[in-house]
Amino acid sequence: MNLRQRLFTPGPTPVPERVMAAMAEPLVYHRGPDFPALLRGVVEQLKPVFPTSDDVLLLSASGSGGMEAALVNVLCRGDRALVVQAGQFGAKWTAMCKAYGIEADVIDLPWGKSVDPGQVAERLKSETRAVFVTQSETSTGALHDIESIACLVRHTDTLLIVDGVSSVVAHPLCTDWGVDIAITASQKGLGVPPGVAIVAMGQRAWDATKRADLPKNYFDLTAHKTAFAEGRGPATLPVTLIAGMRAALEMICEEGIENTWRRHARHAGAVRSAAKALGLSIFPEHPSNALTAIALPESVDGLKLMAYVQTRFGIVLGGGLAHLRGRAIRISNLGHVDDLDILSVVAALEMGLRAQNWAFAPGAGIAAAEAVLA
Amino acid sequence: MNLRQRLFTPGPTPVPERVMAAMAEPLVYHRGPDFPALLRGVVEQLKPVFPTSDDVLLLSASGSGGMEAALVNVLCRGDRALVVQAGQFGAKWTAMCKAYGIEADVIDLPWGKSVDPGQVAERLKSETRAVFVTQSETSTGALHDIESIACLVRHTDTLLIVDGVSSVVAHPLCTDWGVDIAITASQKGLGVPPGVAIVAMGQRAWDATKRADLPKNYFDLTAHKTAFAEGRGPATLPVTLIAGMRAALEMICEEGIENTWRRHARHAGAVRSAAKALGLSIFPEHPSNALTAIALPESVDGLKLMAYVQTRFGIVLGGGLAHLRGRAIRISNLGHVDDLDILSVVAALEMGLRAQNWAFAPGAGIAAAEAVLA
Repeated sequence: MNLRQRLFTPGPTPVPERVMAAMAEPLVYHRGPDFPALLRGVVEQLKPVFPTSDDVLLLSASGSGGMEAALVNVLCRGDRALVVQAGQFGAKWTAMCKAYGIEADVIDLPWGKSVDPGQVAERLKSETRAVFVTQSETSTGALHDIESIACLVRHTDTLLIVDGVSSVVAHPLCTDWGVDIAITASQKGLGVPPGVAIVAMGQRAWDATKRADLPKNYFDLTAHKTAFAEGRGPATLPVTLIAGMRAALEMICEEGIENTWRRHARHAGAVRSAAKALGLSIFPEHPSNALTAIALPESVDGLKLMAYVQTRFGIVLGGGLAHLRGRAIRISNLGHVDDLDILSVVAALEMGLRAQNWAFAPGAGIAAAEAVLA
Repeated sequence: MNLRQRLFTPGPTPVPERVMAAMAEPLVYHRGPDFPALLRGVVEQLKPVFPTSDDVLLLSASGSGGMEAALVNVLCRGDRALVVQAGQFGAKWTAMCKAYGIEADVIDLPWGKSVDPGQVAERLKSETRAVFVTQSETSTGALHDIESIACLVRHTDTLLIVDGVSSVVAHPLCTDWGVDIAITASQKGLGVPPGVAIVAMGQRAWDATKRADLPKNYFDLTAHKTAFAEGRGPATLPVTLIAGMRAALEMICEEGIENTWRRHARHAGAVRSAAKALGLSIFPEHPSNALTAIALPESVDGLKLMAYVQTRFGIVLGGGLAHLRGRAIRISNLGHVDDLDILSVVAALEMGLRAQNWAFAPGAGIAAAEAVLA
């Protein structure tokens, strides 16, 4: 049987038919009369999603491009920054700092840990120009408490720059908390294919652009702001993906963003309950609502489990990354996922564990998930 | 009547149904088992299109991002470069050089002119690290003779870096001529929506990366090369657009790239003949086969002409840019355009000119176009 593909990966996430249909509409010419309204509409619809009242800019780039844009627009070579690194995506900030000659003071945490906001405050120095944090660390499924970190950073002269690539839509990333730049991308919570980075940028960050001396042209956010005021990008924007974003944002607007956040909390809670009922443990201490990283027992091979659910049911899970390869699985509920999707993936997980002779009461995972979803 | 949109813009170009259908297929997960074959297939199919036997890399970016990637990977701050600037896109190279602290020696030509290759040779100094040229200057419709320039540069230590964003598919951009880096993008000759930059990079350019000290992370082409060898991107690649590229490249392969070049020459020739038969003049001295920029007589308003063909026939033309606004139109035949499209746009042009009381023998444009296409 030709199985339908079912993505439970933490990006790309499932693309709803309505988004697909919007992207298949005739191209909107990016210099034509209809483009400014499309662009402005999407920018306005994105604001309640973070939520933010700051400027929102779209870049033709992946989320990493949005992160780099944030860094190069507000810092100078030789500046000091504080980086929270607790997995593969936190390490991206460290690598970018290194590439641009930023002196990174790294809070290097074991995978699965979330940073203690007090530790950020302790490590802040008067010369620290920026703090870089990942809201949802996709490699470990851990959530960092941005609101508490922002409370401690906002009264200093240090900028707070947050990678919300895989958290926005699952969790609020409210820039009013004191987040100076927040970044996300099209292929995560929004459920659009990859290719658009989204940057929300506040006044303190704009002020910092005047001092910043790192070289940039493509990622010049001031040029983006100027062009966006005229309803266009400084270079060609990915118009089909932006048309897809309009449809995705309409769907979120119809659900109501608070309900969307609640849905993600409920779904992630159901997966966590199911995993525990099956005798498995949740990898991170403070789990994100975007995905659930499950640590596997010795006798269960993660790669075999992933291959089983893919072959048998068309389900694509995230695997363990780096040293967790084969030792963990990551089940995403990010984006356009409904209750039955959650029950389906739990049922498939039960079948996969059974195939590897892991002992549990059949149906225990589903029962636990149902209790959360009911 | 709800008119069908007909794009005759020099990017984005019309997206064929087959490409649309390919993009609407279920997402290929960029870390999953099917992605490496997709990526490698597209890379191999792109090689005869330039043509090149060099490495071909895809970036999640617009063409401008590909241009910037070329620059930052091979130069050092303070390096000297020679820039051919004869329109808006040549000026992009100058702006990028300025942003990155490259001392740009600019051959600043009037709009519509093509550079004399001898002038490039004259201006080359022993310390010139790179020459930046645009093959088809989309703002003026002029073609620069890359083969002749390459002949003069290839025996020096200077790199030749060519913006082929709007020329590849319409013209050969053969890296064996001595082009060290050639750049194009998805939304031009390939007929895919915007969002993918394509970079072909040869050994002399790779050697230069070892010396280059400009900061980069997202646009690090060495990281791309390493990741591509494993069948993935260093960050998330725009998978739906790459799936669209596979379909577009299959279509070009079926036509045969030499036939595709001939088709573009024939179509551009037909538009030029028609324009002349209607008493109009071609703006550039050496016109590109990707598009035709037509200088309008005093009595014809370009903005009104464009509005007329859009309202009456759904045709979107390129307008005159900067000081040519309203004084020129640009008719693109780039990408998936067939003979009847060319006759259609010429017929619409006749109607538009007639509406502004421009005197010509009705049908003269069509007759001239037919003579070329016959």
